[in-house]
Amino acid sequence: MAHTIKEKSKILARVNRIKGQLEAFAKSIESEQDEYQVMQLLASCRGALNGLMAEVVEGHIREHIVEAENKKLAAEAGEELIDIMKSFIK
Amino acid sequence: MAHTIKEKSKILARVNRIKGQLEAFAKSIESEQDEYQVMQLLASCRGALNGLMAEVVEGHIREHIVEAENKKLAAEAGEELIDIMKSFIK
Amino acid sequence: MAHTIKEKSKILARVNRIKGQLEAFAKSIESEQDEYQVMQLLASCRGALNGLMAEVVEGHIREHIVEAENKKLAAEAGEELIDIMKSFIK
Amino acid sequence: MAHTIKEKSKILARVNRIKGQLEAFAKSIESEQDEYQVMQLLASCRGALNGLMAEVVEGHIREHIVEAENKKLAAEAGEELIDIMKSFIK
Repeated sequence: MAHTIKEKSKILARVNRIKGQLEAFAKSIESEQDEYQVMQLLASCRGALNGLMAEVVEGHIREHIVEAENKKLAAEAGEELIDIMKSFIK
Repeated sequence: MAHTIKEKSKILARVNRIKGQLEAFAKSIESEQDEYQVMQLLASCRGALNGLMAEVVEGHIREHIVEAENKKLAAEAGEELIDIMKSFIK
Repeated sequence: MAHTIKEKSKILARVNRIKGQLEAFAKSIESEQDEYQVMQLLASCRGALNGLMAEVVEGHIREHIVEAENKKLAAEAGEELIDIMKSFIK
Repeated sequence: MAHTIKEKSKILARVNRIKGQLEAFAKSIESEQDEYQVMQLLASCRGALNGLMAEVVEGHIREHIVEAENKKLAAEAGEELIDIMKSFIK
């Protein structure tokens, strides 16, 4: 996929942030922190991952469906999106 | 939106089924049924509504983005989808 | 399940509101309204149903787990909640 | 929170697996892999994180609400769960 360098670094920065959040969660489990904080840390990871998913899907819609070079490629990218979307509208 | 008559009746049949499921849930509350059944009835409504949402979004992708008459209309329909999608990737 | 009369009418009022929203959605499909409005109406139904689900689960936690008469009943209600919860953490 | 050593290592193993999946996703972005694979890798991360969330919440229900030492602690843990749960029934 042809992401611009700027888009790539934005996505990779988000991935690193989520990895950091997962490590904070892991530490909270190891150090037997308060259960509520443990669950909040995990809920934050989940929120951040959902935000990343939304961004990636957004880019897919704009660049691979709307801006597809031809209708055949748009249709393919559309079917890919439908497939992915079914995994999160549940 | 230009749904075919067949698509329309399929969607309306789904809506009626969900309304029936909501009525079964309401009855289970009124007749003080077992709490587990009450929650299962509501979880079924939710599953059915999510299925309907997925179908409507699927139609939107195929007919309003991929098959749009021109790039401007495709871009508009793409932005609409992005907006709706954000309400369920959370 | 032993809901108070006040709780029951609150839940039933929510169910009626959701049925009304589903009817508005059905009308928007029949009258070929703008696709974006159609999707927004359905997203509203979904939000309302999720709100109802959250309320019912909240009542279950407070009344059937925390306030259970004995540990055996609390454990049963806890397992029921785990089962339902798995259907929406996906 | 008082997790057993076995539970802890199970959770930490899951966290490591998710970190590995995030790294695979990051690599797919860097190496400009096929967009569909990119989205599938991210959807897998999301599924794995949701599975971990379900497991942590499950443990919270069993150990901190059902098996709470007294009703006050059960009520506190119940309110914590309600708060967390609202973040994912949306």
